[in-house]
Amino acid sequence: MVITMDDSATKKEIMRVTELIKKMGGDVHNLPKGSTGTMEVTGDHAGLDREQIAKMPGVKNIDNVKKPYKLGSREMKARNTVVKVGKVAIGGKKLTIIAGSCAVETVEGTNEGGRLLKMLGADLVRGGAFKPRTSPYSFQGLGKRGLEILADARELIGIPVVSEAVDTESFDLVEEYVDLIQIGARNMQNYSLLKRAGRAKKPILLKRGISATINEFLLAAEYIMSGGNYNVILCERGIRTFNDYTRFTLDISSIPELKQQSHLPVLVDPSHASGRRDMIIPLSKAAIAAGADGIMVEVHPFPDKALSDGYQSITFEHFAQLMKELSTIAKAVGRSI
Amino acid sequence: MVITMDDSATKKEIMRVTELIKKMGGDVHNLPKGSTGTMEVTGDHAGLDREQIAKMPGVKNIDNVKKPYKLGSREMKARNTVVKVGKVAIGGKKLTIIAGSCAVETVEGTNEGGRLLKMLGADLVRGGAFKPRTSPYSFQGLGKRGLEILADARELIGIPVVSEAVDTESFDLVEEYVDLIQIGARNMQNYSLLKRAGRAKKPILLKRGISATINEFLLAAEYIMSGGNYNVILCERGIRTFNDYTRFTLDISSIPELKQQSHLPVLVDPSHASGRRDMIIPLSKAAIAAGADGIMVEVHPFPDKALSDGYQSITFEHFAQLMKELSTIAKAVGRSI
Amino acid sequence: MVITMDDSATKKEIMRVTELIKKMGGDVHNLPKGSTGTMEVTGDHAGLDREQIAKMPGVKNIDNVKKPYKLGSREMKARNTVVKVGKVAIGGKKLTIIAGSCAVETVEGTNEGGRLLKMLGADLVRGGAFKPRTSPYSFQGLGKRGLEILADARELIGIPVVSEAVDTESFDLVEEYVDLIQIGARNMQNYSLLKRAGRAKKPILLKRGISATINEFLLAAEYIMSGGNYNVILCERGIRTFNDYTRFTLDISSIPELKQQSHLPVLVDPSHASGRRDMIIPLSKAAIAAGADGIMVEVHPFPDKALSDGYQSITFEHFAQLMKELSTIAKAVGRSI
Amino acid sequence: MVITMDDSATKKEIMRVTELIKKMGGDVHNLPKGSTGTMEVTGDHAGLDREQIAKMPGVKNIDNVKKPYKLGSREMKARNTVVKVGKVAIGGKKLTIIAGSCAVETVEGTNEGGRLLKMLGADLVRGGAFKPRTSPYSFQGLGKRGLEILADARELIGIPVVSEAVDTESFDLVEEYVDLIQIGARNMQNYSLLKRAGRAKKPILLKRGISATINEFLLAAEYIMSGGNYNVILCERGIRTFNDYTRFTLDISSIPELKQQSHLPVLVDPSHASGRRDMIIPLSKAAIAAGADGIMVEVHPFPDKALSDGYQSITFEHFAQLMKELSTIAKAVGRSI
Repeated sequence: MVITMDDSATKKEIMRVTELIKKMGGDVHNLPKGSTGTMEVTGDHAGLDREQIAKMPGVKNIDNVKKPYKLGSREMKARNTVVKVGKVAIGGKKLTIIAGSCAVETVEGTNEGGRLLKMLGADLVRGGAFKPRTSPYSFQGLGKRGLEILADARELIGIPVVSEAVDTESFDLVEEYVDLIQIGARNMQNYSLLKRAGRAKKPILLKRGISATINEFLLAAEYIMSGGNYNVILCERGIRTFNDYTRFTLDISSIPELKQQSHLPVLVDPSHASGRRDMIIPLSKAAIAAGADGIMVEVHPFPDKALSDGYQSITFEHFAQLMKELSTIAKAVGRSI
Repeated sequence: MVITMDDSATKKEIMRVTELIKKMGGDVHNLPKGSTGTMEVTGDHAGLDREQIAKMPGVKNIDNVKKPYKLGSREMKARNTVVKVGKVAIGGKKLTIIAGSCAVETVEGTNEGGRLLKMLGADLVRGGAFKPRTSPYSFQGLGKRGLEILADARELIGIPVVSEAVDTESFDLVEEYVDLIQIGARNMQNYSLLKRAGRAKKPILLKRGISATINEFLLAAEYIMSGGNYNVILCERGIRTFNDYTRFTLDISSIPELKQQSHLPVLVDPSHASGRRDMIIPLSKAAIAAGADGIMVEVHPFPDKALSDGYQSITFEHFAQLMKELSTIAKAVGRSI
Repeated sequence: MVITMDDSATKKEIMRVTELIKKMGGDVHNLPKGSTGTMEVTGDHAGLDREQIAKMPGVKNIDNVKKPYKLGSREMKARNTVVKVGKVAIGGKKLTIIAGSCAVETVEGTNEGGRLLKMLGADLVRGGAFKPRTSPYSFQGLGKRGLEILADARELIGIPVVSEAVDTESFDLVEEYVDLIQIGARNMQNYSLLKRAGRAKKPILLKRGISATINEFLLAAEYIMSGGNYNVILCERGIRTFNDYTRFTLDISSIPELKQQSHLPVLVDPSHASGRRDMIIPLSKAAIAAGADGIMVEVHPFPDKALSDGYQSITFEHFAQLMKELSTIAKAVGRSI
Repeated sequence: MVITMDDSATKKEIMRVTELIKKMGGDVHNLPKGSTGTMEVTGDHAGLDREQIAKMPGVKNIDNVKKPYKLGSREMKARNTVVKVGKVAIGGKKLTIIAGSCAVETVEGTNEGGRLLKMLGADLVRGGAFKPRTSPYSFQGLGKRGLEILADARELIGIPVVSEAVDTESFDLVEEYVDLIQIGARNMQNYSLLKRAGRAKKPILLKRGISATINEFLLAAEYIMSGGNYNVILCERGIRTFNDYTRFTLDISSIPELKQQSHLPVLVDPSHASGRRDMIIPLSKAAIAAGADGIMVEVHPFPDKALSDGYQSITFEHFAQLMKELSTIAKAVGRSI
């Protein structure tokens, strides 16, 4: 339910409507500019007396949002959301490039790598400290030490960093050290983690689950937004299909669909989507051409020696070539890099 | 790595080998009877000096487990594992029937329902207290109150109960109240939750993720077992495919495959697999015919009034008919119900 | 559109209604006993004047069939269809077992194999003469010679035979030599072949395409039936999913669904569904438990020497065991073998 | 097996090698310039005596092609194949745009539409005369009359035309009337049709089956090429996945994969891939950015009145906008339109 207040409505009137709704059992979200209305009511609508709300002074209009997700829907906010991560604006005219190794490995590697990536045009550096691994016997990341290395690199180089939070226990730590908090595909329906992300003060990069529908993806984002954190960035990273020549199947159509259904920024991760370094350049170009707001890509100085996901990482030379080719595509779609 | 000690090996010799391996960085699991060897070494094998271990007094043999999952593999333990939940043995000759409503709703409903289900032959009663829901605005379960209702019903009726733990925060509570702890499909790769389950004193019912391969499913079980909790029950509940006439697609072949690759018990959930009550009887019969150790099914006195998943719940009459038909199939495959 | 004539309607009245409908542009099918009405009108309904038809003498009632498939729908005919292939009745109380090698290879093999299979309880012998192969460089079958070998075996042994027709060119030949004509999964939407099958005088075994929905499958059957050949047997043979441990995924739920939506007999092919001989017995048992009318299975004296599909073929000993286990399951579901 | 003859080998020497191989049971294909060798031997290799061939005068080298597809593989021919359709070159620097209505409907519509499409930049006009339809009761196309209308439009407008051949019976007719013969997704493994296409004198546009792997797709092309028709154009048109917001899922990664594995041109059909007109522009741009040689798109003056596939057709205005946007992307990837 979206409530639009009169332009002339007073703060007091707004407060009274808010209180009434809370008393009736609803949650109230004050909507950003560019939205259809003034406030969005979520939660259980059963107890809400629509007529009584409509009669309150200052209330101009009451609308329904038809989609099951509300706060993230384009229906509710027509204008694109731009999420700020440090000085980087994600979702605006300039594309966002996130690059780095799958896992943080060493101080030197992270610093040198980060410097090089920044020089080559990356906007954020990524690096996993807590790694969700299919096998309990695989390398699980450096944990807190990894976050420290990443944060030091940020200070040294002057570039925001992103890392994954894999559970509510380590969330505080990740939130403390990084600028953008990633929630991975395996956790897209880990609702406790999503709720914790909803209380975070930092923006969230939410990756699509490998078999999530668009509806489920946007409802996962809604979990975060309904908690009060509206700074959510969506990331398509491939879905599971019968295809056997790539690790997953990049669902390129999800980009225009997400853009149509939601006002949130959309990034694409061609590294995990394909699992093949020779696919990174064509898939990245396709993603930008289809309307993505940027890409997130795995880069490693010696891909074949990487502790995880080496086969899908590209070298710095390869990354430089990627940036060159993306720059031309960006211009062709009226954007920059 | 599976180490077999001489039959004549002393406790002290076993302890010395254990200590040596721990010093080298490995984790040691004492294997149950019916296993290939005496102890299983998991964790990082890089630091293990195989030759030095082989020279220790009492060591008879060192084998490798080729599968990526070790403790759960049939390779390591040929004999079927039977998991005890109260007096109920899951994985033995007698099939296990778990029944109940999707969510715990009322005291009366739970008590009456439980009594009826027990009378009709159910071995465990299920009921969700913490519900993982796709939308943040859907009914999320009664929480602790739901667990209390469930535990009271157990005392009253004398039947073990199962409920889902959706996060590490509420795990303690669930472990305190119920006899069998479920980890749902959405959390199959929530590794923190799996690790917590590995420290639990109660058995775990692990549901397959909707797009998990058999390998990923058994590695999820391995997360629990490598933490020291060997009482894991696997549950097939349908995978996501292009099919549009059922909610998911019951992967019937997974039953013989899981039975071949692992010694753990395997249950089937036809309610979630199909999302259609008219499919429950044929799918349950197929599951038992294919070798499953039992089924878990949603039953509700008034399916159309259920707070969640009503369309896939069956009535008590329907459940009685199911039991009757399963009984005949059970006999045909040399089992009982 | 289903038209029901009065019980007292004369032949002449029926003929007049038929002629009127044909003049209006519809196709008329006389319905078998057990159907809702007396005749079914298919084709383009745009030109049909319903009111005028209703006024014709002898017309009692006009109904619509809501499903897109008409002649095959349960809606139109409530009673199960039993298809006769020689003396074998498919779809009745007795289950049908079709067995044989993937491809006809030699006279001796076919004769000896056929004799053995009959002795062990097979109702029909299968053998491919024209083989649809993924690669143009693979063995494509013996062609006409294969059909001759098969037909000779039938005479010698006294058992009906089934073989695949891969195109309209060879259809006449296949129809001449065999008792049941198979249309394979790859050709499920080869509409010219389906139309030719609709004009055939022999029954058709139609296999589900590897990514066909149930709706598409029943519409493919409708192509055959709308051509006048009502003797269609459906066969589930696995769908393509992300699963990697079987060649395809047996869609066990399709059995109750097909049985509910259609009156046609339903067989299951566990050999192609799994591509693994160790899956044949559990999947066959599951299929019968779920309500299938029989199975079609690949048997070869020396599976590892088979010219095609050896890895999924079972030996005669294995087949004998399968028959024994199926016999018990058959009894448990009120059927025989 | 690829045989390379000495540069100085005489015609007679080449002929003698050819004859020897044919005598041994192989099929010989003379390779175009840009290929690894001089001739390719396909068919059954069992009878080939490699040593004897190597000793023949003029033979320089014998290589194996490791891929199961030979003639279509990049391994065998490194240089891109450019297929000529009339004056249009498909697979070169200039992108190819095929546009038109799903089905040929009227003379006026086809002529006016074709003229407009040509003016707006289309290279070929498409139109279905024989339509493969899921239901036997749907409009099946105008047949021969449709081909005549299409051929007349070609003469009038001066633009090559493409139409689908759905079976071997109507293939001659389609070959007679059109410039490029389409084989649809449902017929990708209709081997008789592929073999007939292999004997055609006109180029073939082969669409990928909705659940075909890349390997199966290239083996289908190999059926055509091994018959002697090397002018094959591949077309990605979406695969079947669990996604529910588009009709199929455009497999964008297939473009770089096909380009890497094969030397054949690759087009993309965003209309069938998505089934949604609002997806045509972003998906077309993505396809070109990923390396496709062109697109095939459904255009209809009044999409909502189209006899088939109206919901996925775009208007001429929409097509003009598409051409404008593609032109910019084409330049960005070093190509023209």
